[in-house]
Amino acid sequence: VKGSLGCWIDGVATDAVAANDRGLQYGDGLFETLLLRHGAARFLDAHLERLTLGLARLGIVFVDVEPLRRDIERAVALAPPLAILKIIVTRGSAPRRGYAPTDGAPARRIVTLWPTSPTDALKSGVALGIAHSRAATSTALAGMKTLNRLENVLAAAEIADGEFDVIMVDAAHRVISGSSSNLFIVNDGRLATPRVDTAGVAGVMRGIVLREAARLRIASELRDLTLEDVIRADEAFITNARIGVVPVTRVGEHSFRMTDLAPKLRAHIEALDA
Amino acid sequence: VKGSLGCWIDGVATDAVAANDRGLQYGDGLFETLLLRHGAARFLDAHLERLTLGLARLGIVFVDVEPLRRDIERAVALAPPLAILKIIVTRGSAPRRGYAPTDGAPARRIVTLWPTSPTDALKSGVALGIAHSRAATSTALAGMKTLNRLENVLAAAEIADGEFDVIMVDAAHRVISGSSSNLFIVNDGRLATPRVDTAGVAGVMRGIVLREAARLRIASELRDLTLEDVIRADEAFITNARIGVVPVTRVGEHSFRMTDLAPKLRAHIEALDA
Repeated sequence: VKGSLGCWIDGVATDAVAANDRGLQYGDGLFETLLLRHGAARFLDAHLERLTLGLARLGIVFVDVEPLRRDIERAVALAPPLAILKIIVTRGSAPRRGYAPTDGAPARRIVTLWPTSPTDALKSGVALGIAHSRAATSTALAGMKTLNRLENVLAAAEIADGEFDVIMVDAAHRVISGSSSNLFIVNDGRLATPRVDTAGVAGVMRGIVLREAARLRIASELRDLTLEDVIRADEAFITNARIGVVPVTRVGEHSFRMTDLAPKLRAHIEALDA
Repeated sequence: VKGSLGCWIDGVATDAVAANDRGLQYGDGLFETLLLRHGAARFLDAHLERLTLGLARLGIVFVDVEPLRRDIERAVALAPPLAILKIIVTRGSAPRRGYAPTDGAPARRIVTLWPTSPTDALKSGVALGIAHSRAATSTALAGMKTLNRLENVLAAAEIADGEFDVIMVDAAHRVISGSSSNLFIVNDGRLATPRVDTAGVAGVMRGIVLREAARLRIASELRDLTLEDVIRADEAFITNARIGVVPVTRVGEHSFRMTDLAPKLRAHIEALDA
């Protein structure tokens, strides 16, 4: 794959996927984006747990995680000090046309190693826009990092110069997330972030932040947030596996005065060994 | 592609797609399923119109439809008397990671010719189940036949023995469609079918039915339908490009007594030359 440092499909180095792969035909699969740092896949267990739970939810047969672990080890061994590993698992090739899954068709692993650059410069914060295109409400797919990401594509197309991401909002005016990040707000030292049961992705870094906040005795809650809630918050930050925790300095026309907790959480999580 | 009669990617006979295709990575594209009958692509203009409008809505650059027309002509020339042509157009290969589309990247055409069998046996009607998994509400994507079809996959997985399709319902209890068909009801000789502005696909055969109904002076309306509305209707039928118009004899436990208008519409549309 052009620009990548390697691509392996079911463990074989190749750039070509079967045209009848159900990932291409229907977006019938999931993916994970891992940060590789100095020879280790960051938060690997959390990524593999989310992946295997999602595959079970979709009924994609993935009996043995060991071949995928070997793919990851191979990529980690080849990776520069900082890299991204994108893992796609699809329901494999369709032996015939049609949406209905075929019993027992084996899943397919597509693992691509990408270069990336340090995100230290994001420490001082980023600006977010607000996407006009509305996030779907879907209890069937919410929370999972499925290959059905066209609405994230449409939202990301709205990112303006000077903005790092855009906030996606659903038809009921609930804030969902960024197009490629989860969003947290902070009020009186307490965290809040939207649930992901009607839309959005249960980001691995979102989970790490919630876990580490508990360890640091920082209160947090999952609740509906409006754009108004975001703008009135003491501070806000976004998270994903690549960037970690990044303070938000601006949302649309509104500037935040404080970026207090986010830098602390960022440093704390960066120092974790996992 | 195994089981297919041919696959051409950007006009070249091949089974392999670049792993960085945005159709695979994000479901970033659209598709059409055409019925080829005796050397003609049925309702080709309607399919191409829906495709090009959808690509414009997604901002996928597809300046020239002529190469696709040549793909179709080539497949039609090779096709048996009855065949299916599946056309996928994706936003092409991503030169880098990330949701945001890259300006000017060329679209990719993936055209696959499939065998199919006559659907005459469906004339006497089919049974439908009701999917438990809920259809998403998405104004950004509704109406288009995008590659984000995972909820159709989950619904189709619920089709039981003896059922032809399942009815998909959204969280607000609105009937959307079948997993691979549009649904119409008939009351006092008038047609009704759901709008496709919050969910579902604007099926080409749905459009043909609405057009031909008008020509035949059969009234029709687009409106919200509940399962209750469906079950209380005089009759019901489903449509798609492959099967045409097919009467519904049963929905869940409910049997329909009449299949009057559907057979007439089926015969009328089958006889059309387009």
